[in-house]
Order: sequence, then C-alpha cells, then structure tokens
Amino acid sequence: MARSFALRVRKGGLGFMISLNARAAGIVGRMTGDAEALGIRVGRLPGGATVVDAGINARGSREAGRLLAEASMGGLGRAAFCHERYGGEEGELIFPSLSVDVALPHLACMASQYAGWPLRLGDYAAIASGPARALAGGEEIFDTLGYSDPADVAVLMLEGRTPPDEVVAAHVAGRCGVAPEKVTLIVAPTASIVGSVQVAARSVETALHKLHRLGFDVRRVAAASGFCPIAPVAADDVSAVGRTNDALLYGSRVFLSVHAPEEDIAALIGVVPAESSPDYGSPFLDLFLRHGGDFFGIDPMLFSPARIEIHCLESGRTLSAGRVAPDLLRRSLPGADQ
Amino acid sequence: MARSFALRVRKGGLGFMISLNARAAGIVGRMTGDAEALGIRVGRLPGGATVVDAGINARGSREAGRLLAEASMGGLGRAAFCHERYGGEEGELIFPSLSVDVALPHLACMASQYAGWPLRLGDYAAIASGPARALAGGEEIFDTLGYSDPADVAVLMLEGRTPPDEVVAAHVAGRCGVAPEKVTLIVAPTASIVGSVQVAARSVETALHKLHRLGFDVRRVAAASGFCPIAPVAADDVSAVGRTNDALLYGSRVFLSVHAPEEDIAALIGVVPAESSPDYGSPFLDLFLRHGGDFFGIDPMLFSPARIEIHCLESGRTLSAGRVAPDLLRRSLPGADQ
Amino acid sequence: MARSFALRVRKGGLGFMISLNARAAGIVGRMTGDAEALGIRVGRLPGGATVVDAGINARGSREAGRLLAEASMGGLGRAAFCHERYGGEEGELIFPSLSVDVALPHLACMASQYAGWPLRLGDYAAIASGPARALAGGEEIFDTLGYSDPADVAVLMLEGRTPPDEVVAAHVAGRCGVAPEKVTLIVAPTASIVGSVQVAARSVETALHKLHRLGFDVRRVAAASGFCPIAPVAADDVSAVGRTNDALLYGSRVFLSVHAPEEDIAALIGVVPAESSPDYGSPFLDLFLRHGGDFFGIDPMLFSPARIEIHCLESGRTLSAGRVAPDLLRRSLPGADQ
Repeated sequence: MARSFALRVRKGGLGFMISLNARAAGIVGRMTGDAEALGIRVGRLPGGATVVDAGINARGSREAGRLLAEASMGGLGRAAFCHERYGGEEGELIFPSLSVDVALPHLACMASQYAGWPLRLGDYAAIASGPARALAGGEEIFDTLGYSDPADVAVLMLEGRTPPDEVVAAHVAGRCGVAPEKVTLIVAPTASIVGSVQVAARSVETALHKLHRLGFDVRRVAAASGFCPIAPVAADDVSAVGRTNDALLYGSRVFLSVHAPEEDIAALIGVVPAESSPDYGSPFLDLFLRHGGDFFGIDPMLFSPARIEIHCLESGRTLSAGRVAPDLLRRSLPGADQ
Repeated sequence: MARSFALRVRKGGLGFMISLNARAAGIVGRMTGDAEALGIRVGRLPGGATVVDAGINARGSREAGRLLAEASMGGLGRAAFCHERYGGEEGELIFPSLSVDVALPHLACMASQYAGWPLRLGDYAAIASGPARALAGGEEIFDTLGYSDPADVAVLMLEGRTPPDEVVAAHVAGRCGVAPEKVTLIVAPTASIVGSVQVAARSVETALHKLHRLGFDVRRVAAASGFCPIAPVAADDVSAVGRTNDALLYGSRVFLSVHAPEEDIAALIGVVPAESSPDYGSPFLDLFLRHGGDFFGIDPMLFSPARIEIHCLESGRTLSAGRVAPDLLRRSLPGADQ
Repeated sequence: MARSFALRVRKGGLGFMISLNARAAGIVGRMTGDAEALGIRVGRLPGGATVVDAGINARGSREAGRLLAEASMGGLGRAAFCHERYGGEEGELIFPSLSVDVALPHLACMASQYAGWPLRLGDYAAIASGPARALAGGEEIFDTLGYSDPADVAVLMLEGRTPPDEVVAAHVAGRCGVAPEKVTLIVAPTASIVGSVQVAARSVETALHKLHRLGFDVRRVAAASGFCPIAPVAADDVSAVGRTNDALLYGSRVFLSVHAPEEDIAALIGVVPAESSPDYGSPFLDLFLRHGGDFFGIDPMLFSPARIEIHCLESGRTLSAGRVAPDLLRRSLPGADQ
C-alpha cells in the first residue's frame, strides 16, 4: 500500500489543483466579517489592498490567532486550543497550548506557513509567511515542492510592529503577480496575543523544516500532528522572540507518518529534535543576545521541535527522539507551575 | 503596546457594536433546527415567545449543553469537550471536562453568562443568565461594563425545573424592551445533562466574577481560557447544586491575560482561588445544608476557580495561586478514580 | 427526572424522525467537495453509485478519517483529535488520539457505526458499517433499537482493500431499497491512515456493543464520550487488525450516563472491560493467529473498552471498572514512549 503511493511521490509532479491562497482568503473573509469580536481591525490601503491589524493597534484575541494560523496553513491544517501537561517528575506544568492537525503537510507548512520571506522595503521590515509565498516563489524550498498556486488573490502574514503601507502592498502584489486590490496583509507583532498563538501553531512546520534541512523529501510526510505551549505574551518583541521560540524548542511534540524506508528515518531522527544542536539548553533570548541579536549566528539546526515521533508507513514502526524540557520551560515561561 | 490599549480601556466607552443577543440567537437557531438529535424540545407560548426545554421533559445531550454554553457567552466563547486529569500523587483522576476559550471575556462572561438575574414571579423561580441580562440591565455589574445591546431579540437561560409560561415570558420581554415573540427562554434543571455541562462552562466566568468582587476592572481581561470537570448528573437538584459547584471550586483551572500593572495583580491573586475562603474545604452540599439551604449565608468569596494563572501583559510575567483538590473531587464526584 | 424518561424508553417506539443516512450524506458531501485536500478519490460506478476511495489508491488523511467517523455515526457524534497520556508509573506514553462525543448513542453507534454487516459477494469481501445498515435491517440488533430510517439515500463504509464495483453497489442498493445512484460507498483498508482513525472512533461503540451482548438495553444510554489511541498504520492489513484492536482493548476509555437502576449497572460493570475476558492480555494479533485467523474463535466478550465508567442517572453515582494497560500498548504500538 505504502509502495504505490511512494512511487507516485518519487515521480514528483503530483499536480495539486489546490489553491492555498483561495483557501486562506476564505478563512480571512470569515475573520474580517467578525472583526470586532476577534479584536482585529480591517482597513484598505490607497492601492486597494486589505490590511488586517491583529495586534498593533488592535487587541487581538486567541481565536484570531487560531484562525490566522489556519489561514497560514492555506486552510489545510486545523488548529485547536487545548491545555497540555509538560511537567516531568518535578510536578505539574500545564500550559494553554495549541494543537495542529495538518493535511498535505508539505503544502500547508512548507509552501505556506513557513516564515521564509524576510520582507525589507526601505524602512519597513517584517517576517512574512503564508500562502502568498507560493505565488511569489523564488525560495529554494519551492524547487522541492513542485507546487504552483493558480490563485489571483494573495494572502500574506507579517510578523512585525509596523503596519504595512501601499508601497509594501504594491511590492507584494508585484512579486505575487496579482492586482494590489487582491492582496490581503495580516500583521501582528511577536509580543501580542495573536503573535503567541501563531508561533505555537508552528510545531509541525518546525519539524518539516528541519527534515528539509536534513535533506529529507518533505513530500513524503503523509500525516502530521503536534502541539506546543502558547507562550504568555512578553513585555517587548525581543523577549517575545525568546519565549515563543522556547515554547517550540523545549515544549513542542510532533507526530509524523511518512512514506520512506525505515533506514532513512533511522539515519536522521536522532538529529531532528532541538536537543541535537550544540546551542540547545539556554533560553533562546540568551542565545539571541549572545549572538548580538543576529539570528543567523544561531545554529540553524536548533530550530526543531522538542520531541519527534516518526511513524514509518513502510515498516509500520515508530521511531522517536528528543524530549520536552520542563526546567527550561519553567525558566522561560515562569509562573505556571504550582 | 500594552499601554496604548490600557489607556483606551481607562477612558471606558469602548463602544462595542456587538449584539450578544443576536449572536446567541444564531446559535439557538441552530439548536432548534436540530432539536431531535440534541434531545431538546421547542415550543411556543401563547404570547409568541419560544421556549426550549433542554432537560425537564427532554433528555438533553452533552452537545446541547455545549451549544447552550456558547449561546450563554453571547457567541463570544468557544466550548469544547475534553478529558482532563485532576489527580495528584494519589493516582489517576480523569473526568470528561469542558474547556472554554473566551473572546472579550468581560462581555461574554459578565454581560452575558453570569447567573445574575434571580427570576421570581409568583410561584415561578429560576436563576437566569445569558445575554438578555444585558438588555434588562439594572444589575450593578453593568455600571462597569459600559455595554448596551442594540438587539431586538432576547435570549435568556433559566436554571430550574419548571417550564416558564407566558407570564414569565411577558415579564422578560418587558424588562428587555423587546416584543414577547422575540424572546427565547432555554430551560434546564441543575440535575440534567445540559445543566452539568453549562455549569462546567463557567470556569472563566467564575474567575471574572471573583475579580470584579475584588474591585478589579474586568474590562482589563484581554484573553481567557479554562477548564472544569463536568459533574456527573446528581439524582436531585440540591445534590446537583453541590456537585456542579464542587467541580468549579475544587477542579477548575483558569488562565487569564490582563492589561494591568503587575502590582495590581500581585495584590489580589492570592485571594482569587476558592482556597482563600474560610468556607473552603467541605463539599458544597454540606456547606449549603449547614447554612440551612441559604446561598447568601455562604461566603461569597468562595465562588472562585480552584486554580488561577494571571498573565500580566504589561510585565510579561505570570502569577498563579490555588490548586486543584483531587481529594475533594473524589469525595464529591466519586467513582472515577481507579 | 430520570424516571419520566425511563418510562418513555420502556414503552419503546421513541419514533425518531432522524435520518442517519441523510445526515451522513451531508458529511460525505462536504468530504467529496474537498477531496484533494483530504487525499480521497471520488468516482462513479456504471450503475450510478458513488465510490469514495479513502485509502486504497488514495493517500487519505487524518481529517478524512475524522469526517468518515462522524458520517459513520450518522452525524450524531463528534470526533476530535487530541493527544492523550496512557502511561502509568512506568513513564510517559502519549499517543495522538481520537475522542468522540455521541448524542443518541444507541442510534449513532448501534444503528449506524457498528461493523455488523460482513459483506461477501463472490470474490468481494469487506466489513461494512455505517447508516446503510439501518436501511438494510435484518441484523438482530435492530429488534432492540426500534429505528427505521426514512432516507432514500444510503451511505455505507467498507473496511477492505478492494474497491467495490457495480455488483456490490447494486447489492447494497437492493438491500437498502434505494436506487443505485443514491448509494455512496466509502472504502478504506485497515492498514491506512483513514482506517486507523475510524477504528479509534469506536471507543463508545465498543462499549455499547458489549453492553448489548450482556443484555443491557442500549437505548438507556443517554450520553457518551470516550477516547482511544490512533494506532500507527501497520505495514499490512493483518497487523493493522491487531494494532487497531489493541488500541481499543488496552487503551480506550469510555464514559456513559445511563437511565437504569444502579443495581443493574452494578450487576454487569465488572464484565464490561476487556480485562474480564479470558483472552485478555495478549496482543490481538497473537490471539488472532493463535485462532488460525478466525475472528469467531476469539472470545466475543473480549471486544470491549479498556476502562469504563458508567454514571447512573437514577442514583447519581458513577461505577467504574477496568484499566488502561500501558505495557500492552507499548508492546503493540512501540516507539512512542520516551
């Protein structure tokens, strides 16, 4: 059974007709239709693009973050709130958490959710993610994915504290090949309610990205779920970068089912979790400051879930590595333990 | 970031356009459209009001209770079933539970869900909650909330064992300023499947109400989630009052994010959980009987979640107090431990 | 309160107007409308019947399995993904799991979800479940349920590795008394992503079926929830039969509320869990092979949840029996423990 599918994957060109942007636009439409309850603000820029403020001058809400996360996955993943235990023998440690269940994980997470577009335009800087990346193309990852989106609408998520203006929107429209009035930009700072939730939604994405870095063909991932603590919002964005990453590195658990020979999985699973990195073990903020605030100084292999279980669809067996680190979570996200 | 919002809160008059009653009516409409599967009975009173029996002469269902809970929160909260662990070192203790995630908690819980309207009309007596309270106004809490609902429909939840008649409906219509045929009354006894679920949905509400009693401005609560055991239905309503309260007092956990100075939170968090009350520690039914069945004899400060975590959006830190009490849960809700 | 309802049950003939098949068809319609994202393939047979391949030549997805499970329950049950802990003192054991919450459990599970139709037609063999069983009738269980479905559409789920052809569809149409073009057959092998999920959805069904075998009137079950590990897909269907059953027998927990005298519950609860069977304690695959691959050689009383809690609506008390068996889960579903 696994075999026939694996063959089709190997040939590549699965020829998906799915439009990640159209699916995301449907979710964003429901968000803008309930803006007041969700605590978001919807505006239109001179060129016609829609801007959704989900955390700069808007309160935001956990539900807005959850919906934004589903839109970020091109409507292929479900995000759900839960309350999970992370404590070991040291006692209880419960965090409000976000679990995700992802269909077509390589499209949902890599073609869409991954924050792979560092958007810099004059003074403007934000990290962009979401399905518009698949229209813009150009990122190395798309060589593997073999996906193109037929949509004439573009949805882009921006992690930052400056609202995008029409220059940003026009740039995005140009890169995506759509009219500016077909562009929707949703923005939330890292230190915001929505910001915390959308990072917690990245458990599976972080695992897939690490697998891709390790040379594994992420199209082989057939099913995926995971969960991660929702980091309490920090007082400033730099601290928030620290905490939200700690939640992923030290708290997230990911479960994958993959079409691949077991030996291929065995060969790499040990280095998938964050603990395999020499930079593992410090709060991310310390690491970030130690490298002078330079992301690229940090070992890229650190960006991984705390714990991974990979179920081999060919052998039927499950391999696992890594562990949740309650002590590091307690240090980074203090106050929750009793 | 926290600051600009906090300022706007302080000025009051957030001017919400949201109609809690219209949102609730939408949910109730879906319930009445699926009445048979949900085990509810829908009728119309002589004056035109709709009555939904969700547990008197109707079986009810967990799903009906879940939807009623969402309607009670004016459509601003999501309720979801889960199975949570409450055991300490004494071993396992798992209860079917209800988790809630609440947007605009001060509106969802205080302007709507709080059971603040003791409805007595001749022989008729029930505790009323839900969004119609915001139309009727008059309760002290509305001075703080600064909310008024523009709706011409009213939805009221009644906890009681007598179906309301047209006199009750006309009274509610009059108090709410809507036509009787625009009134929907949903009734369920405490000792019913729906009754157990709707109380379990009150984890966050209980926390907000306690904060309000302590003089804290509940409009400062920006995000909220919580969970609570669903008390197994008791054989009679008085026992059910005992159990459902025990589930909240000894089993519920609440997580809030608030816009307030950390010192304001630190000054009160210690007295938020139920354990801060001198009446803490007995099954609620014992307490209730000890006070001769007089609710108002019981320390009002007892009505609180078992455990609270308050995340300060200004400092980024989380403060916590209280704990779940597995022994008291075992005594009040026996049979679940193995 | 319990009494009046119990009386109505005893009279039988509750006269449900609900159409399990129409409700299921609505869910299946949403599935076929999103086939590509769900990884399913939709085709039409010569006679006009619809076939949904959810795991033979299709990848399937967890979400497709979840929706299939909800359709299997005639749209009366909700299935939700979660991550649950099954470990005892031996350490952590977390599995991606499926929880169900079921309204009208006797209809959802016994009239619909139960795999009570072994479909054999010439070379074709599959185990059939789902609401079409209620149209076909003939099974002993329907004598108890007193339910008939007015639908002119039939939805049947097939567990097997051969796609059904028009002969199968015509047979089903004939048995169900509907036109062949009104038949939908959804097929997934046991060893598939959808196959694993749909078995994990059977926690409550397994409990109700055991109660029925023990002579208990399942119409008395008023509310039900449960959860079960989703067994990682095995490399072949026979191994998958082993694992998916182990997940139920050694990992599932079920919570029921029933309208019945407590002594009736006390008289049988001890033999409800799987551990009451002499065949308990081996991986199901060993048992299956030990009996020469003959299902009917295995003690039918083995097919039960690991742990059951029955809440008596008449007395208000909860009785419980059985326990989750982490060691057996570890042996059958290896790789997840850390």
